[in-house]
Amino acid sequence: MANMIMSTAEIISSDNVEGKAVYNPTGDKLGSIDDLMIERTSGQIRYAVLEFGGFLGMGTDRYPVPWSMLKYDSERDAYVVPLDKNKLENAPKYSDTTVPTYDTKYSKSVNSYYGTDL
Amino acid sequence: MANMIMSTAEIISSDNVEGKAVYNPTGDKLGSIDDLMIERTSGQIRYAVLEFGGFLGMGTDRYPVPWSMLKYDSERDAYVVPLDKNKLENAPKYSDTTVPTYDTKYSKSVNSYYGTDL
Repeated sequence: MANMIMSTAEIISSDNVEGKAVYNPTGDKLGSIDDLMIERTSGQIRYAVLEFGGFLGMGTDRYPVPWSMLKYDSERDAYVVPLDKNKLENAPKYSDTTVPTYDTKYSKSVNSYYGTDL
Repeated sequence: MANMIMSTAEIISSDNVEGKAVYNPTGDKLGSIDDLMIERTSGQIRYAVLEFGGFLGMGTDRYPVPWSMLKYDSERDAYVVPLDKNKLENAPKYSDTTVPTYDTKYSKSVNSYYGTDL
């Protein structure tokens, strides 16, 4: 009965998601969740904004990744995303001080890059 | 063309939602959004946790309200909830230091109180 707290709480605080570690499927820690981007009317999270703290020399850039790509790993209390270095090299990103407006055009560019719907 | 920034950004940061003011339909400011409760797997916001800072003498209690009850008001850049004092008096609440586990039982009790689905 490990992770009992995790398994009983399927509804969690946004504060609990932000800061959570992010791994790739082979178990390398990529970084953490810096922010959540929410569709205002529906209340659906559309993107997790990932911070790869110095990983691969990527400094403090922020990478918006479609929420549907994140899988929760209760063992590690962390998220797993199917991303590798090659995919990230040209991924949409921005610095902490230049957050783009997530309008339709920008959203489409992110989804198009990762091949996800919406 | 007022609220141009608001109208073009339909996907916003969770940091942008937290702290937003909450009004009732008659225009009285009730308080603000303190936290967002998220269904972990789907990424759907289920509850906004409202803080009524001293309103009606309610101190610092937190009131989880189903997200579907909140309507965004672009004029005020705030949220409106159809709540009055009578409805709030017996509403589910907790102190900032005793956050309950949002398990199925607790979620049902909140939804049942407000008569919302889920």
